[in-house]
Amino acid sequence: MAAMNSGLRSFVKSELERYRLALEDYILETAPARAEGVPSELFESMEYSLRAGGKRLRPALCLAAAKRSGVDEKKAMPMALGLEMLHTATLIHDDLPCMDDDDMRRGKPSNHAKFGETLALLAGDALFVQSLEFPMANLTGIEPKNVLRAMHIFAKAIGPSGVCGGQVLDIDAAKAAGEQDYVRRIAKLKTGALIQAAVLTGAALGGAKETLLARYADYAAHLGSAFQIVDDILDVTSTAEELGKTPGKDERDGKLTHVTVYGIERAREMAAEESEAARAALDGVLPQDDFLMLLPEYLVHRSK
Amino acid sequence: MAAMNSGLRSFVKSELERYRLALEDYILETAPARAEGVPSELFESMEYSLRAGGKRLRPALCLAAAKRSGVDEKKAMPMALGLEMLHTATLIHDDLPCMDDDDMRRGKPSNHAKFGETLALLAGDALFVQSLEFPMANLTGIEPKNVLRAMHIFAKAIGPSGVCGGQVLDIDAAKAAGEQDYVRRIAKLKTGALIQAAVLTGAALGGAKETLLARYADYAAHLGSAFQIVDDILDVTSTAEELGKTPGKDERDGKLTHVTVYGIERAREMAAEESEAARAALDGVLPQDDFLMLLPEYLVHRSK
Repeated sequence: MAAMNSGLRSFVKSELERYRLALEDYILETAPARAEGVPSELFESMEYSLRAGGKRLRPALCLAAAKRSGVDEKKAMPMALGLEMLHTATLIHDDLPCMDDDDMRRGKPSNHAKFGETLALLAGDALFVQSLEFPMANLTGIEPKNVLRAMHIFAKAIGPSGVCGGQVLDIDAAKAAGEQDYVRRIAKLKTGALIQAAVLTGAALGGAKETLLARYADYAAHLGSAFQIVDDILDVTSTAEELGKTPGKDERDGKLTHVTVYGIERAREMAAEESEAARAALDGVLPQDDFLMLLPEYLVHRSK
Repeated sequence: MAAMNSGLRSFVKSELERYRLALEDYILETAPARAEGVPSELFESMEYSLRAGGKRLRPALCLAAAKRSGVDEKKAMPMALGLEMLHTATLIHDDLPCMDDDDMRRGKPSNHAKFGETLALLAGDALFVQSLEFPMANLTGIEPKNVLRAMHIFAKAIGPSGVCGGQVLDIDAAKAAGEQDYVRRIAKLKTGALIQAAVLTGAALGGAKETLLARYADYAAHLGSAFQIVDDILDVTSTAEELGKTPGKDERDGKLTHVTVYGIERAREMAAEESEAARAALDGVLPQDDFLMLLPEYLVHRSK
């Protein structure tokens, strides 16, 4: 496949930027961590991490899929923010001393480095729960059965057979060193589950049928895979400034990554294969120049 | 008010026991922590705490309220288990070294004492999420809008304006020593929010109107208060064997409790007042000899 031309790259980049800004505005407007009776240090800790920036990829995926199932971006926004809250919760817990023990995140002190371990633990817990409550409270003007379907998909993705399970495998990875399938299983649960949920919840809000959801699930699985492989590559090729966190840390911690298991050249090929498979999964569903069709290749060539 | 006669006490006791056994059976039957792809050590850690026993009060409240709104106990059971999963998650996190640092729970090693800190953290996270996913996946034969209403009530109760917020206040309590209102605020968020959710989700599954939900909310607020006051009293009057955990720990940790703030005599009076207020809140809604009407006084006179 020919490399993406610069016009298409600009288009994907500007769409991502548009989604990102819409989400940032929505966070400021709704201040979703604030609610009557919430202790102030708790929401400060929650909002610190929620507002710390990032690509906001999961919200973009959700909003794009919702739009393509006939749901306005504005109406789907509470779901998009729920996904980002959950992602933020996992980052806070990942950085804790009993997990990856990382003091830097997105170029700033990580949550526990700023607020202490206990408050970081509870802010993560609170964002976990809030990620589910906020959409249920704010998804208005959408059929209750579609909301319930989307929320169920979301909750399943973040539970023990998804994100939480991936975190367990991740910390145990040293045990299983050498097992090639293991690194793919971790990626599938830890990163893939939430990326898949982002696409599927968006589509489900519009009442997408099971056959279409299956195509989207296939797309998102390959997209998530490509994304995680490139993450692993960037951990060894980037500077701290580009990455916003400590590079080379995976290898020093004895983490199993696509690079440590397959080597960097094979990892690069795998990323390209997964990106192509993602696009192929939606062949005939979306036009070739659709944002979601172009996104996988764009993400494979990112530098942070 | 005259003390409850022994016939009524036996009735409440046997009802609680019936609910407890129904829930224990349901846990064994559904093994809710098990799902495809869940790492085995994660669900072992989750099930260890979920099966560790306890009064199962929250499920009983939910099932009783559901029944009184026309929903069969069997149909409401996934909601009841969700509440118990969430309660279990908070106990696991409460016992962690960075929180109360307790090695005993219900007469057995606490989760982190048995499985290590990291797995305990993640098992708590997973149960948090599972507590919401399980009901959404399994509440069948109930109107989607009623399920969504109940799930929203539940998620709100466990978020930063509920259980999670209460945990923050609890660890900060030493700061605010002397402030009498503070101990009541902690109890309201930390224990009260989930007890209230148990009653309200049950009623909401049957489509209870807002006016009835408000009566139940008032009932549950007083019931939760009475329950927490008695918990504080038992912490100083019980043996380790009766309690299944280390007694006298609250005072040694400098925790603010109803006993340390008000003294044991006043605390006893307060428990009786709250129990009476709970019953009064449902006057005219339920018969005087209904299980839910008798329960507050029964709980005030419990010994563990």
